[in-house]
Amino acid sequence: MVIVMKPNATEKQISDVSNLLSSLDLGAHISKGEERVVIGVIGDKKKLHDKPIELMDGVEKVVPIVESYKLASRTFNPVSTVIDVDGVLIGDKNIVIMAGPCAVESREQLFESAEAVKKSGAKFLRGGAYKPRTSPYSFQGLEEEGLKMLYEAKRYTGLKIVTEVMDIHSIDVVSKYADVLQIGARNMQNFSLLREIGRSDMPVLLKRGIAATIEEWLNAAEYILSEGNENVVLCERGIRTFETYTRNTLDLSAVPVIKKLSHLPIIVDPSHGTGKSFLVNSMAKAAIAAGADGLIIEVHPDPQNALSDGAQSLTPMEFDMLTKEILSIANAIGRDFE
Amino acid sequence: MVIVMKPNATEKQISDVSNLLSSLDLGAHISKGEERVVIGVIGDKKKLHDKPIELMDGVEKVVPIVESYKLASRTFNPVSTVIDVDGVLIGDKNIVIMAGPCAVESREQLFESAEAVKKSGAKFLRGGAYKPRTSPYSFQGLEEEGLKMLYEAKRYTGLKIVTEVMDIHSIDVVSKYADVLQIGARNMQNFSLLREIGRSDMPVLLKRGIAATIEEWLNAAEYILSEGNENVVLCERGIRTFETYTRNTLDLSAVPVIKKLSHLPIIVDPSHGTGKSFLVNSMAKAAIAAGADGLIIEVHPDPQNALSDGAQSLTPMEFDMLTKEILSIANAIGRDFE
Amino acid sequence: MVIVMKPNATEKQISDVSNLLSSLDLGAHISKGEERVVIGVIGDKKKLHDKPIELMDGVEKVVPIVESYKLASRTFNPVSTVIDVDGVLIGDKNIVIMAGPCAVESREQLFESAEAVKKSGAKFLRGGAYKPRTSPYSFQGLEEEGLKMLYEAKRYTGLKIVTEVMDIHSIDVVSKYADVLQIGARNMQNFSLLREIGRSDMPVLLKRGIAATIEEWLNAAEYILSEGNENVVLCERGIRTFETYTRNTLDLSAVPVIKKLSHLPIIVDPSHGTGKSFLVNSMAKAAIAAGADGLIIEVHPDPQNALSDGAQSLTPMEFDMLTKEILSIANAIGRDFE
Amino acid sequence: MVIVMKPNATEKQISDVSNLLSSLDLGAHISKGEERVVIGVIGDKKKLHDKPIELMDGVEKVVPIVESYKLASRTFNPVSTVIDVDGVLIGDKNIVIMAGPCAVESREQLFESAEAVKKSGAKFLRGGAYKPRTSPYSFQGLEEEGLKMLYEAKRYTGLKIVTEVMDIHSIDVVSKYADVLQIGARNMQNFSLLREIGRSDMPVLLKRGIAATIEEWLNAAEYILSEGNENVVLCERGIRTFETYTRNTLDLSAVPVIKKLSHLPIIVDPSHGTGKSFLVNSMAKAAIAAGADGLIIEVHPDPQNALSDGAQSLTPMEFDMLTKEILSIANAIGRDFE
Repeated sequence: MVIVMKPNATEKQISDVSNLLSSLDLGAHISKGEERVVIGVIGDKKKLHDKPIELMDGVEKVVPIVESYKLASRTFNPVSTVIDVDGVLIGDKNIVIMAGPCAVESREQLFESAEAVKKSGAKFLRGGAYKPRTSPYSFQGLEEEGLKMLYEAKRYTGLKIVTEVMDIHSIDVVSKYADVLQIGARNMQNFSLLREIGRSDMPVLLKRGIAATIEEWLNAAEYILSEGNENVVLCERGIRTFETYTRNTLDLSAVPVIKKLSHLPIIVDPSHGTGKSFLVNSMAKAAIAAGADGLIIEVHPDPQNALSDGAQSLTPMEFDMLTKEILSIANAIGRDFE
Repeated sequence: MVIVMKPNATEKQISDVSNLLSSLDLGAHISKGEERVVIGVIGDKKKLHDKPIELMDGVEKVVPIVESYKLASRTFNPVSTVIDVDGVLIGDKNIVIMAGPCAVESREQLFESAEAVKKSGAKFLRGGAYKPRTSPYSFQGLEEEGLKMLYEAKRYTGLKIVTEVMDIHSIDVVSKYADVLQIGARNMQNFSLLREIGRSDMPVLLKRGIAATIEEWLNAAEYILSEGNENVVLCERGIRTFETYTRNTLDLSAVPVIKKLSHLPIIVDPSHGTGKSFLVNSMAKAAIAAGADGLIIEVHPDPQNALSDGAQSLTPMEFDMLTKEILSIANAIGRDFE
Repeated sequence: MVIVMKPNATEKQISDVSNLLSSLDLGAHISKGEERVVIGVIGDKKKLHDKPIELMDGVEKVVPIVESYKLASRTFNPVSTVIDVDGVLIGDKNIVIMAGPCAVESREQLFESAEAVKKSGAKFLRGGAYKPRTSPYSFQGLEEEGLKMLYEAKRYTGLKIVTEVMDIHSIDVVSKYADVLQIGARNMQNFSLLREIGRSDMPVLLKRGIAATIEEWLNAAEYILSEGNENVVLCERGIRTFETYTRNTLDLSAVPVIKKLSHLPIIVDPSHGTGKSFLVNSMAKAAIAAGADGLIIEVHPDPQNALSDGAQSLTPMEFDMLTKEILSIANAIGRDFE
Repeated sequence: MVIVMKPNATEKQISDVSNLLSSLDLGAHISKGEERVVIGVIGDKKKLHDKPIELMDGVEKVVPIVESYKLASRTFNPVSTVIDVDGVLIGDKNIVIMAGPCAVESREQLFESAEAVKKSGAKFLRGGAYKPRTSPYSFQGLEEEGLKMLYEAKRYTGLKIVTEVMDIHSIDVVSKYADVLQIGARNMQNFSLLREIGRSDMPVLLKRGIAATIEEWLNAAEYILSEGNENVVLCERGIRTFETYTRNTLDLSAVPVIKKLSHLPIIVDPSHGTGKSFLVNSMAKAAIAAGADGLIIEVHPDPQNALSDGAQSLTPMEFDMLTKEILSIANAIGRDFE
């Protein structure tokens, strides 16, 4: 952390700052520039957390130097994390595909989706039983009944299950049926939920918030990691920008950025990331080319009659074609698929 | 809702759409333009919720015409709502000021703040007992102990209490001590929390999400209203934009927009909205001039030693000066203060 | 400027950086922290402009400390600038109102507007003769013919003229008729135009770019100032955000921010800032309460038949009412109007 | 275009709208819904351009239905455009790579760059002779001297030249030396420049503005096309969002969106799109996987001593490696490179 003094800061103001630092057992390196004095802080900066040094007389601003997260940081954990979900590895050489309908609607719809995505190479079945919807009048999911259908589909196909948990009340019930708990974009900073899931050892898929910086996202992961759960997979799913043609703007640069800043695996959701099914194919291939460890894609046997997100769902046939193209891209960068 | 067909849509495709509408007891008005056919949908559009008509053959796009919320809409409820919090009215001719520290830190800090803001004319004491923080290593609040201090401060000063509730688990305990439940920006789309608070009759202060459109915000209010709780006050607190000099960009145009679209009262938080104490005075006056029903302002007896948000807190003396200026502005637009 | 080294930077890498600095006659203050070494640069940082120090081995990042503009900065020019446009002062105690139609359409329309806005207290007549339009098929302005009408209106009413100049070709012709040259938002970083106008001594109204940070905006002003023209007035006119209900998001916090960072006057355009006439009144009052030195407002005798921006134009009667309310707000903060 | 009336619109107000339409020889299809009347407009909507129908009594809003550009639209020109730059095709099966330094700095630097990028397979040499810089104190380019060096490098290597033209004054001189005129992001809505370049037949590289919607971008292309110049190549180069880790957010979804909406070729600039050289490789591969027709990449023989944008420039060796990886990706999707 670096403290920049005002051009006209007095000696007294400068020594007040350095006295505060030494009272906290922190060192101070004072650099006198032509226009300003700059004070470098040495030692454990956590001691300064919540001290509004900006407000001290003579201080112009405070510039943070190092990232605020530790457990999620590659600086402190250089080896990439590989998460083992009951035999399927996420973050390893092979890429992983999760697919299925936005929402579980019925046994038939779910099983048809599950069989189709399995045949095309997916290892995970996605499907929401609890649905966060902008309007209270939209379909809100089948709840535990939907979870049971997911579990049945798992037993029938061998696919692992990834599904969203929306609040602390339902962690237990979702954990009973699912293999991976999804934290949705709207809940990325639901800190009570993050902490509570951090106390379990369930693998977690942590979606990026719609307006979350990468640093905030990694801090959200830090909430989970700091409670002891190390099984966090990040998921880029588009951010909100001024562009309205697409539902969100898929930020694929987040993939190599996360690979640099963190050791955690990252997958991409091109369905929510674009909101339009005709864009999913291109953006899924781009995500793999950018280095993503996997994809999560909405597939519905009959998108026109889907109860939610039909406009961004692929048909099983479109999905099958996509997986073949994905395989070519994965091979082109030296990765594999199964 | 209007359905726009592609330039080359066939008669069959057009009749498929109109047949779907009539199967749902909806009317279809077909307009044949020079380039395209446009179909107006007549009847209760909720029947079309979750039908992805965009995916039908020959359809180019679907354009919504009316707002998705009803109970929050001024169209259907033309009279402005006034909320009575135990004798203090929000949304009436008088503006209302809520003030106090970001977080409850100690009995002394809280009481000193409470006395000061009361003296300057505030009717509500704000103060967080549960704090949502980006990093898990920041101060997280005194929890129930903090709530008790708020309650004591209420008994001592007569100020009403507004404080944040972060999850469904703590609704009961917060309701025991508070007069108004605050839902923070990060929880604006925590739908489980919205519903549960909707089932109580506690007044609610619903902050706008950091990247929430006004329509999403009103839909979040609709979640609360649709469960039966009509006591919702909206709070504009800044949105996230590309500008980094300010912590957020305070969107004061939201004030007259909400006044047009909705009957609910709206107040403004210039402290979070700017993140810098030197901007609070100007933006507080601007908010009142724009028509806000009140303000919520961070005041701390010693901002330099605040455990959170010190950089945006006013001292009691700055706050006192501000309230006098606010009074002048309020009078200039025909409103009052006490 | 502060150079942050990587945790594992070698002595050699650190001395390479400090050697580079001394080869440029710059000083280096080296602070050894627990995790990293930080190097403060002392001397004229312009020497480091365009040196990508980030790329040197062992360097993690470079953190700028001081603003990049000088002539526009209040740090170096503490006294507020007042611009005298032929007797009318901008940036002084009195606020200034500029008003008129978006585009000059006809002699009648312009004169009717001019008389009306003068009667209500405006000191400047606005009106575009060259119109920047998103589509090439929209009305593009009357060009020099329009300028002549503005000049006639000036002679008739005594109002000063502010009108847009869109390219370097037309600076001369616009300067012949106008009192203030407006640089539109889309041209805020048209550096050729900025420089050329900087070589004249005409007063300039520099609108903020639709996605310009305040720092970029002040750098654009710096282009004009650095060529010798000191008569720059800034104009906040809304920025582009994710919100689509308003045409732009009017960033009123820019007013007190500019007042702190710069000595230049700033006015506000609530017409473009919101895009809807029903919002202009509230936002104009808020702008004055926030400390703006003036307003520029679209007024049209018959908005329904305006050739551009009718939706955001006030009628003369609405404008007259507004000026009365503005006067109350101005008085409430100790300013005046005429 | 669809006109939505207010719930309480009177018969008179409805007939006023339809009378206005018929006075312009436009048809009106009136749909009476349960809550509102909606009027579809039939005929050439250009007649309604600049008529603020929103302001007519009883009108709630106006919803545009079709795109505002015609010549740039695939609807009206279904065949993809291929642009022939003196034998090199852009928009054809083969992808095209443009590379070179941000700015022309010296004969040596340019020739070394040119030889290197040619050897690795680039067909175009990029390099700025006129540089748009945020600060007036940054290096502004070698101007015509730089253009001459580019021309020499062309004669020496056979590479085509792409370079920026910043204002109407310099179109002629740049056209004398360059093969493709680049319009920079800051000038995307410099309409005078667009029109003037539209009157030549030089190929144009039109970069997307930093906050331009895809529709505005296609309208900017329309300005050029409508003057007769059909040789427009679009270039996605990142948009401004709230994320600050990257210089811009590269919007790769723009590639498949443009392919759907327009027949024009599109290339991607991952150097400006990310601002950090370590991200260029991943994003370049992702761009090709997403369907881009080519890339424009900054390469500098000595990025540490570059006069501008060194932080985002590749070394010749990094570039060479990248082109090999690009070839694999191109082949994986059935495209080629040379």
